[in-house]
Amino acid sequence: MRYRDSGVDIDRANEATKSIRDSVRRTWGSDVLSDVGHFGGLLRMPEGYRDPVLVSSMDGVGTKLLVARMAGRYDTIGRDLVNHCVNDILVQGAKPLFFLDYVATGKLDPDMVAALVRGLADACEDNQCALIGGETAEMPDVYRHGDFDLAGAIVGVVERDAIIDGSSIVPGDTILGLPSSGLHTNGYSLARKIVFDRLGLSVESEVEELGTTIGDELLRVHRSYRDCVEVLSNKVTIRGLAHITGGGVVENLPRILPAGTAARIDAGSWPVPPVFPFLAREGDVPDGEMYRVFNMGLGMLAVVPGDQVDQAPREIAGMVVHRVGEITEGDGFVDVV
Amino acid sequence: MRYRDSGVDIDRANEATKSIRDSVRRTWGSDVLSDVGHFGGLLRMPEGYRDPVLVSSMDGVGTKLLVARMAGRYDTIGRDLVNHCVNDILVQGAKPLFFLDYVATGKLDPDMVAALVRGLADACEDNQCALIGGETAEMPDVYRHGDFDLAGAIVGVVERDAIIDGSSIVPGDTILGLPSSGLHTNGYSLARKIVFDRLGLSVESEVEELGTTIGDELLRVHRSYRDCVEVLSNKVTIRGLAHITGGGVVENLPRILPAGTAARIDAGSWPVPPVFPFLAREGDVPDGEMYRVFNMGLGMLAVVPGDQVDQAPREIAGMVVHRVGEITEGDGFVDVV
Repeated sequence: MRYRDSGVDIDRANEATKSIRDSVRRTWGSDVLSDVGHFGGLLRMPEGYRDPVLVSSMDGVGTKLLVARMAGRYDTIGRDLVNHCVNDILVQGAKPLFFLDYVATGKLDPDMVAALVRGLADACEDNQCALIGGETAEMPDVYRHGDFDLAGAIVGVVERDAIIDGSSIVPGDTILGLPSSGLHTNGYSLARKIVFDRLGLSVESEVEELGTTIGDELLRVHRSYRDCVEVLSNKVTIRGLAHITGGGVVENLPRILPAGTAARIDAGSWPVPPVFPFLAREGDVPDGEMYRVFNMGLGMLAVVPGDQVDQAPREIAGMVVHRVGEITEGDGFVDVV
Repeated sequence: MRYRDSGVDIDRANEATKSIRDSVRRTWGSDVLSDVGHFGGLLRMPEGYRDPVLVSSMDGVGTKLLVARMAGRYDTIGRDLVNHCVNDILVQGAKPLFFLDYVATGKLDPDMVAALVRGLADACEDNQCALIGGETAEMPDVYRHGDFDLAGAIVGVVERDAIIDGSSIVPGDTILGLPSSGLHTNGYSLARKIVFDRLGLSVESEVEELGTTIGDELLRVHRSYRDCVEVLSNKVTIRGLAHITGGGVVENLPRILPAGTAARIDAGSWPVPPVFPFLAREGDVPDGEMYRVFNMGLGMLAVVPGDQVDQAPREIAGMVVHRVGEITEGDGFVDVV
């Protein structure tokens, strides 16, 4: 018996490595000291930090990848993953340094892996982040043929006294909302159940109120707020940032609220993209549940002093910045009113 | 419809987070600035480095997790994963700083997740590495009930002029071998096929020549060589280190050989643990294939100057250090003779 007989092909793995080499290398600056195929990725710490703090996060794309699979479109979910991770460290004030990916499949398809990594590399380039390493695992018996998973880890850096942690938030602060592009990467198990199981639609189905196909709507790329937050931070003091992921506004905003504060979110103060009322209606999903599962059109919230809010740009890079609520006195709850 | 109806339960996820909190916190030193539940993990860069280089790696445990599942034993594969990752950055001279994990399942079982994370935390503690973050994903329709995957990323640091990269290796250098505990985390698809499919054994089956059960043999924990390499580096100059993972000695040692060199490995110069001849015989696996798939008893190779080899300890922490070969002139190949 040979390894290949058990469903694992080292030659195929080596071929996949070759095919991703160019994608990966274009994300590298002069600070990357390693090469593809080394045991670990090497990156020189950037100079000029007095008291640098490394900020890191690990995430996956959830079952959005099943939609990618249905549509046979593998070059966007890597961007979802990188952007998601960038936002997760951005909320603490960190700039990305490097990213590592994990791709696991039942049977390694070099073209699919190349498309996944191309998406990762595109977003890494956009976010000035080196795609420095990764693992591509062929695991027959864990993943069925065609099934796969995609996860990634990001590491960034922030000056210690520039960490954003919400601790300076006080009642009277204004909550600004940055628009999401759609579902981003959360709530896909529920969305898929409504759209594919209950309504019997396919990724090719055109839905008039969405103005596009189900596949295009559900595969809209998770936005990175890196540039947007940078512009905002040059105009106003940012006291807290919340990335709106699983758990929605009601579970993510409390993560940064200091003791004695709460938040009021004014429903109707921003335009909710049509995909959310569509899912609510077709799935009979209660309002409270919608806010707990989906981002409802808000991908990132920024808490700024109430008296600085007029200095905030109304629009950044085509994204309208909405005033969506206020910090109040309270015990950490978020009320959507 | 509610999110729970689609197979994802946010309350169950929150419960799992609570159950792992204590395991995670005991891996933290005073350099960890974040807490469980924050968006990202925060770690202060250690002081005292002149030109620090971050070394990182991402890995999974492969289908060893299927053996863990068959045995219902979830508290050791986390140790496999951390130790594997520690070794992957150790070979470049780096000490671990922090680790991030990714656990994905079809249906989240808080007890299983707690056991997995306990294993991760145990090994992080042993390796002085903070378990600083992670993602636990519930993905119905990707993973079948009971199926799961486990991956992780490690980040460490090394002084730039202390990076070990093999570039100073010259013909005449000696190759020292550090013993593996067994299969470590490679070759499990082939091993499982031989043991479970061809021989029809179960994890409880006692095998006399192994002196233990199949489950115990296949779940032996991947060794960390952190302490061992530290002791060795205090006695001799280490010119190169190769972690023997997928691809075996013949594909991993070439990763550190500079142009114009090759390696001769003397079969018979170290004791091969009984699991390897057992698998070779029962699976009719050719010799060359055995060396390409399995570590054959060598978990880590260290290349040291030939004239320093007598200064190397014969034994470190109970592990016998064997002289297993020599660097020769050649074009990067490894000959097992």
